[in-house]
Amino acid sequence: MRIECIAIGTELLTTRRLDTNSVWLGERLASLGLAFHRKTAVGDSHEDLAALFREALTRSDLILTTGGLGPTFDDFTKECFAEVLGAELREDAQSREDMLAFYAARKRVPPASNFKQALLPEGAEALRNPVGTAPGVWWENPKGHPGVRIVMMPGVPREMKRMWEDQVEPRLRALAGTPTHTLRMVVAGVPESALDERIRAVRERHSHLDWTILASLTQVELLARGSDPAALEAARADFQPVLGEDLVGVGEGNLEDAVLAGLKARGETLAVAESVTGGLLASRLTAIPGASEVFLGGATVYSAKAKVALLGLDAAQLAQDGTVSEATSRELAEKVRARLGAAWGLGITGNAGPSAEGGAPVGALFIALAGPEGTVSKALTIPGDRVDVQLRGMAWALDLLRRVSRIG
Amino acid sequence: MRIECIAIGTELLTTRRLDTNSVWLGERLASLGLAFHRKTAVGDSHEDLAALFREALTRSDLILTTGGLGPTFDDFTKECFAEVLGAELREDAQSREDMLAFYAARKRVPPASNFKQALLPEGAEALRNPVGTAPGVWWENPKGHPGVRIVMMPGVPREMKRMWEDQVEPRLRALAGTPTHTLRMVVAGVPESALDERIRAVRERHSHLDWTILASLTQVELLARGSDPAALEAARADFQPVLGEDLVGVGEGNLEDAVLAGLKARGETLAVAESVTGGLLASRLTAIPGASEVFLGGATVYSAKAKVALLGLDAAQLAQDGTVSEATSRELAEKVRARLGAAWGLGITGNAGPSAEGGAPVGALFIALAGPEGTVSKALTIPGDRVDVQLRGMAWALDLLRRVSRIG
Repeated sequence: MRIECIAIGTELLTTRRLDTNSVWLGERLASLGLAFHRKTAVGDSHEDLAALFREALTRSDLILTTGGLGPTFDDFTKECFAEVLGAELREDAQSREDMLAFYAARKRVPPASNFKQALLPEGAEALRNPVGTAPGVWWENPKGHPGVRIVMMPGVPREMKRMWEDQVEPRLRALAGTPTHTLRMVVAGVPESALDERIRAVRERHSHLDWTILASLTQVELLARGSDPAALEAARADFQPVLGEDLVGVGEGNLEDAVLAGLKARGETLAVAESVTGGLLASRLTAIPGASEVFLGGATVYSAKAKVALLGLDAAQLAQDGTVSEATSRELAEKVRARLGAAWGLGITGNAGPSAEGGAPVGALFIALAGPEGTVSKALTIPGDRVDVQLRGMAWALDLLRRVSRIG
Repeated sequence: MRIECIAIGTELLTTRRLDTNSVWLGERLASLGLAFHRKTAVGDSHEDLAALFREALTRSDLILTTGGLGPTFDDFTKECFAEVLGAELREDAQSREDMLAFYAARKRVPPASNFKQALLPEGAEALRNPVGTAPGVWWENPKGHPGVRIVMMPGVPREMKRMWEDQVEPRLRALAGTPTHTLRMVVAGVPESALDERIRAVRERHSHLDWTILASLTQVELLARGSDPAALEAARADFQPVLGEDLVGVGEGNLEDAVLAGLKARGETLAVAESVTGGLLASRLTAIPGASEVFLGGATVYSAKAKVALLGLDAAQLAQDGTVSEATSRELAEKVRARLGAAWGLGITGNAGPSAEGGAPVGALFIALAGPEGTVSKALTIPGDRVDVQLRGMAWALDLLRRVSRIG
C-alpha cells in the first residue's frame, strides 16, 4: 500500500511551526507494518492544494490529510478534494447534529460560518469529532480512482489523534499487511564512515532488511526494519561480534541511558567534575527520571577558582599543570570521586573555543575516570565548534566510563 | 519565484526525527521576502526521489534539498538529480582536496567510500563545506530547464546552516524581491495568553505588520515582519512601555544571552548551585562563547551528600529544612556565592518528579538569589513533566537575576 501524508496550512511553510502530526502518524503506521512514501506540507492556496491532490491520486493508494477542515475562509480541504474528484458537497445530518450539540453543551450558538463543517462529499463518510467541531472524512473508491482511500483529519493534534485512534486505525488494521518490527542498535566511539565500512559485509548478508544509519555528535544508531522477528534477531546476533565493545545497547535509549541503567543495575554511583562541558554531562544525566539513584552530583568548575574552592585542587599545582591538561583532568576525577564518595568520578577539561587558552588549542580535550581500580585518562582533539567540543566531550566521557566499568 | 524544499531521508518518514531544517530555511527565506509553496519529505528510495525531482522541475524555479549527500549507501541525492537531468558526475578537484585536508587535520585517511562525496554533476558548482565532508551543489539552468536553480545541502543542520549563510543566501539575496525586516522582542515571566491580552490594543494599532507569537518553556517571542523599517521601529517604541520590565531584549538572543551580556557589561560574576535543574542552567550559560568571563562555575548538588561536600551546607540543618525548601535554596545561593567569590549566587532546588520526595510534591520549586544587597527568594509550583520543571526552573532563576540585578 503506497501511503502519503499531506499537511495543510500556510503556517507550516512560514513560521517555526513544526508538522508534528505527520511524525506521530508515521509511528502509528509503523506499528501496523505500514509506512509513508512521502510527506508534504502545503499552504492554504486553492491552486497548490488542487495540484497536489491530483498528483497524490495518481501515485498513492491511501492519502492522509491533516488541516483545513475548520470554519474559516482559509479552510477548504474538503471543498478542494470534492472539486478535483467532481463530487458534490451535501450536508451530513449527523455532523450538523453533533455540531449543534457541541455548541449547546457550551451554551453557545454556532456562528453561521460553522455550518460548512457539516458538508460532506457525496460518496464519502463522515468521521465524528468528539473533541472539536470539525468532522473528518473517510472516502473509499472515489469516482475514477478505484482502490484509493482518502482520509481527511483536523490539524489540531488532539482532535486528529483521537479521530485516528477511534476511527481510522481500526479500519486500516484490517487492510494492513504483516506488522513491521524494528531492530535498533546504538554504537559509540566510532565515526559513522568507519562504522559503515566495518559493517558492510554483515549488512549485505541481511540486505533483505531495510537499513538506516543515523549519526549524531554523541552516537550512531543502526536501524533495521522487517516483518520477520527471527530475521531481525539473526541480524542482531550477526552484528554483535562485529560491533563488539562499541555496541552500547539494543532497543530503546541512548548512550546516557545505557550508562545510567548499567550503573543502577550494579548499585554504583557517579560524580562528575566538568570544566569544558560546563554542566552538559550532569544536565543530560539528570534529565533521565530516577537519575538521583546513581548521580550524586558534580562540580561545574569553569574557572581555576572553582576548581580550588569546590574540589580542593592545589592552586600552585593547577597553575603548574595548566587548567587544560591531562594532570588536571585526573585531579578533577579523583577529587570529585573522593569528595562525594562515589564509585566513579569523571573529570573533563578542555578548550571549546572561541580562542586558544593557556597554551591549549581550541578542541583540546582531556577526560579522566577515577574508579575503584585507579584512574585512567584519555587525550583527544575535537574538530568543530563550541557545541561539537562540548557534545563530543560529553559522549567520550560517558563512553570511557561505559568501557572501563564494563557496563552492559 | 516558486520555491520548494525537499528533505531527504527515510528517518524523516519512519522515526521520530523531525525535519527542522525546512523550518529554519522557511524563516531565512522570509527575511528575504521569499516563501516556500511546498515542502516535501521523502525516503532514501531511488525511484521515489527521481519521481519527486521530475515533478519539482516542472513546478518550481528554485529547488532546495537537504540530506543524502553523505558517504553511505543510502546517500544518493546528487546521483539521482544528475540521472534525472541526464548529466554526468565528475570529480571536483577542490572538493577532493577539501576532503583530504579535512581528514588530514584529524590525522585520518578518508575511507574509499568517502570519495563519492567529491563528485559533482557537470554544469553544477560545488558549495564548500567548512564543517563537514559533504560539499553541497549549486546548479543553475540545468539542461532542458532554463531559469531553474537547484541547491543541494547536507542534512546535518549545522553543516546546512553554515553553507546557507555563507554561500546560498548571499546568492539568493540578489534574486529576491523587497527584503522583509523583522522586529523580535523577547519577553520572560509572563504566560503567553496573559501577554496576548496585554498587548492586544497596541498590536492592533500596528496590524499592518505581520505578527507571530512563539511561546516556549523559557520565554515568549513576539515577531513582527514588514518591509518598512520605520514601521517596525514605531511598533518597538509603542511596545516598550507596555512590556516594561518583562521585556528581556530586542533583536537576536535569548534570556540566557541577555543575562550573560548584562553581567559582562558590568564586570559582574555569577556562580550557581543547582539541585533540581541538575546542571541545565550551567550548561545553557557555558554554551555561549565567552561565558567564562562571567560564569565562575557551579555545583550540581543532586544529593544531600553533594550539598554538604561541595558547598559546606550543615547536614543537620539540611535534614531539618528539607532538601526541597526555601531555606535550602537560600543556603545554596549564599554558599556558592561565598565559595566562588562571585557577585551573584543562584540556588535552585525543587522536585521534577516522577514522584513526590521528602514532602515536596512534583513541580515544587524554590529559587534564591544572593547578591551584594542580600538574598531574595521565590517559591513556585510548575505544572508539567520533568523537562517542564527543569526548563522553567532554569528560566525563572535567570529571570529573577535579570530583574533583581536590573540588567539591561
